[in-house]
Amino acid sequence: MKIALAQLNYHIGNFPDNTAKIITAIRNAKNEKADLIVFAELAVGGYPAKDLLRNHRFLAECNQSLAEIASHCTDIACILGAPVKNEDLEGKPLYNGAVYLEKGAIKEVVHKSFLPDYDVFDEYRYFEPNKHFNCIEINGQKVALTVCEDLWDDDTANSYVGDLMSELRKEDPTLIINIAASPFSYTHFQNRLNVLKRNVIKAACPLVYVNQVGAHTDIIFDGRSLALDRNGDIISELHSFEEDFRIIDFGTELKTVAPRETSEIEMIHGALILGLRDYFRKSGFKKAILGLSGGLDSAVVAALACEALGAENVLAILLPSKYSSDHSIKDALDLVKNTGCEHQIIPIEDVALSFEKVLKNSFKGTTPDTTEENIQARVRGTILMALSNKFGHILLNTSNKSEAAVGYGTLYGDMAGSLSVIGDVYKTQAFALARYINREREIIPINTIVKPPSAELRPDQKDSDSLPPYEILDSVLFQLIELEKAGSEIVNSGFEESLVHRVSKLLNNAEFKRFQAPPILRVSPKAFGSGRVMPLVAKFSF
Amino acid sequence: MKIALAQLNYHIGNFPDNTAKIITAIRNAKNEKADLIVFAELAVGGYPAKDLLRNHRFLAECNQSLAEIASHCTDIACILGAPVKNEDLEGKPLYNGAVYLEKGAIKEVVHKSFLPDYDVFDEYRYFEPNKHFNCIEINGQKVALTVCEDLWDDDTANSYVGDLMSELRKEDPTLIINIAASPFSYTHFQNRLNVLKRNVIKAACPLVYVNQVGAHTDIIFDGRSLALDRNGDIISELHSFEEDFRIIDFGTELKTVAPRETSEIEMIHGALILGLRDYFRKSGFKKAILGLSGGLDSAVVAALACEALGAENVLAILLPSKYSSDHSIKDALDLVKNTGCEHQIIPIEDVALSFEKVLKNSFKGTTPDTTEENIQARVRGTILMALSNKFGHILLNTSNKSEAAVGYGTLYGDMAGSLSVIGDVYKTQAFALARYINREREIIPINTIVKPPSAELRPDQKDSDSLPPYEILDSVLFQLIELEKAGSEIVNSGFEESLVHRVSKLLNNAEFKRFQAPPILRVSPKAFGSGRVMPLVAKFSF
Repeated sequence: MKIALAQLNYHIGNFPDNTAKIITAIRNAKNEKADLIVFAELAVGGYPAKDLLRNHRFLAECNQSLAEIASHCTDIACILGAPVKNEDLEGKPLYNGAVYLEKGAIKEVVHKSFLPDYDVFDEYRYFEPNKHFNCIEINGQKVALTVCEDLWDDDTANSYVGDLMSELRKEDPTLIINIAASPFSYTHFQNRLNVLKRNVIKAACPLVYVNQVGAHTDIIFDGRSLALDRNGDIISELHSFEEDFRIIDFGTELKTVAPRETSEIEMIHGALILGLRDYFRKSGFKKAILGLSGGLDSAVVAALACEALGAENVLAILLPSKYSSDHSIKDALDLVKNTGCEHQIIPIEDVALSFEKVLKNSFKGTTPDTTEENIQARVRGTILMALSNKFGHILLNTSNKSEAAVGYGTLYGDMAGSLSVIGDVYKTQAFALARYINREREIIPINTIVKPPSAELRPDQKDSDSLPPYEILDSVLFQLIELEKAGSEIVNSGFEESLVHRVSKLLNNAEFKRFQAPPILRVSPKAFGSGRVMPLVAKFSF
Repeated sequence: MKIALAQLNYHIGNFPDNTAKIITAIRNAKNEKADLIVFAELAVGGYPAKDLLRNHRFLAECNQSLAEIASHCTDIACILGAPVKNEDLEGKPLYNGAVYLEKGAIKEVVHKSFLPDYDVFDEYRYFEPNKHFNCIEINGQKVALTVCEDLWDDDTANSYVGDLMSELRKEDPTLIINIAASPFSYTHFQNRLNVLKRNVIKAACPLVYVNQVGAHTDIIFDGRSLALDRNGDIISELHSFEEDFRIIDFGTELKTVAPRETSEIEMIHGALILGLRDYFRKSGFKKAILGLSGGLDSAVVAALACEALGAENVLAILLPSKYSSDHSIKDALDLVKNTGCEHQIIPIEDVALSFEKVLKNSFKGTTPDTTEENIQARVRGTILMALSNKFGHILLNTSNKSEAAVGYGTLYGDMAGSLSVIGDVYKTQAFALARYINREREIIPINTIVKPPSAELRPDQKDSDSLPPYEILDSVLFQLIELEKAGSEIVNSGFEESLVHRVSKLLNNAEFKRFQAPPILRVSPKAFGSGRVMPLVAKFSF
């Protein structure tokens, strides 16, 4: 059997574009005499469509698209994901379906069994789980047709609906097909490959895995679809972070390839570029604006934006104050030169003073504190938003994950923006990212990388005045957030108790700030956002 | 059997306070010779504890509390909700349990069967559903012990796990007990009463229903626990929006009472007062600040805050600009006088001008538009946040639901604040709320209520310049949001197509703004926030 793997980038709710793209792929597969073409989970409608799945017109359009796609499936079979009506009176109104099209019509529908609802997932909100487990016949093959999580045999985070794969294996499948919408994180590919291999070896048959590619605001899909032979070795690994199309002829002798070697930082870089590009393309904007301080974070975001959108679409604004050091302005200007983006310099001193003046009476008898620092940050936020409003540039937020975690940022000030580019990248990772960006030539000025981090909101301020060194801070945060450890476990592993206590308290106390943060491009297994929901008025620290 | 209904206000994660409160209620029930005391769903730990349910120490503290509470249950039985470990290897790690305590120990645990995960609910994220349906014996009674949603027989939004109540009815229960954490909305009490009645009549036995009371940031629980006789008539209806404790002796002749008559606006008012009060109490703050424009929304929020927190804890800031009319300042000052709250006047003109000055070069050749209006709103936001930061007052957001829906508000400007008080109250409801607040004496100046709404961001601006009349706007929005109708259905019901199209587009286009809005006190069946999740970069309008 000749199978085409179509790894496409869908746009949620954009039925004309998605359908056209799917039909083009079907045509290409037909031209190459493929017997079957496989698309990703919920290709029809896009994933995650969230509460659009409750909209009748959205669902009607899904059905229309499906009918149109089916009409092109003559001389070729097709498997693709779509929301499918639950005709029973009981349970949720939809299934997450793998639809098998043949001879111009829907021949069979398999429903997803394991519905993830941990981390960023909420599939029980919309879908009823499948409880009937059968293989289906395609071209004389007995196919274990599964949807994403269905193969995740080791994941006890699933609600238990039955032992899907061991039921399917009883029928001796000759092929496993898995259609997926499996979001990227820098640890996820290895887990995914292990799971797929384990399934292949248990069933002793080859596997075709087709993942979505593309970003939907915060969630990034890396693609990287796979075909494995019956030993679990890779026959084909599709591109990461871009569309791809491959045909595999299972009737011929199959050559295996080694898994693509990609470093963590290279993956994060690829994900952020795709995340940025898709946010702009899918929301219909071209131009980005950001504040450029001369520091590391804004330099990294500017460099990423220039790569993703083209330097001609990036406007960097330098907003110096009396606390800005000379090297900051020079470093920022060096970055502008290295990237070729546009820039403007707008000093904030006068506006900050005008705030101090109108607040003078109210503040009588008080001494300067973080309030005055916050005013500076909000003056910058307001100037950036004014330029964004006037010229239609989207403001990029430049906060990193370490800052977001401990609340080291000003709400409505440096926390402003439509999209947080590196809000899931710890400061130590941001340094590595800067070095990666500079791998061929100096884009981010070396001085930006080597100087001690500072918010420059008061004289001679350094991040290390109020925060532990980033190596230590990030390690504690990683254990609290990604590993979900309790404070006592971290102390037991050798960190100072007072430090762990302080960091944990800062993390908790900043929940109210993060609640109002922009969406954050997710690259880690546990990002701030919908994947980590905490009560705001609880009394509990880790 | 003598049963105590303990309707308490829990604080998520605050184990010492919650446990002490529960033990006090047990003591009181013992003093009154009750056989059984019933508390709400997830009373131990608090609900919704969200991802704290993934924290090992949080769960360990739940178990410790449970053990301590059990040790007080001598000479009395007790039913209360707690997260309970799933000892199986399969499925989610927890059950949402109704724990039956007797003779100082846990005697039995019943797991919740129907786990809601629509609207604001996400219980499948944490809990495995029960699949074994049995009544339990308490004091010679056969009790159908259920948890909240378990009785919602008509709700097809549930995933189907089996027909719980029809199984339990086979055992001929003599009493139904339901422990609940059922959030308030102004339509919910009637639905709840109908569901409870239907269950009672089918099972032909009385029912005890104990709900949580209290607010957890956005979600408000109204309490209003109930006891019904076997005919479905009310024997006891506990207070709305406050703690309550009642004992019912089912061994005596039971008198029925009529359901308490409460208007929609009275309920909304009660909910908002509790929401405000609990947000401050549970987050450890006392004082609120808000911007007072002389318009309706800020007047309503100020009046509510004065009632909830005491006028001495409310600081109203008048932030007039050159576009503020004289009557606005007078109306705002009248409200200050009527409520007795503190106030300050801080004109924003000079700061707005200083922004215009530094932006002059960048804006060369452009004409004034909403950018300049947004700057004014952000100057106000920054001044309010500066006072909040300096003196520790919490900034209240004063946007209403109509504005939030169509994006008629400035991000980081009038959309700033830690809590949105009336973000789930349409403008037309805000008018009704103002009249309700004035039911005994004029608190909100009449002129504030009768004058045409205006943002006063340019000369002679009126809301009706850019928006349809609020009666029409709110009606279309209600159909799009609460009733989740497609645009075509609304047009078919008699609204102009271009209007529906415009409102629907505004609603969609403002998703990115609402993503960064403060948490909103939820009073309707469909509030903005976690109960309505939409993709941000989709291409689809209703």
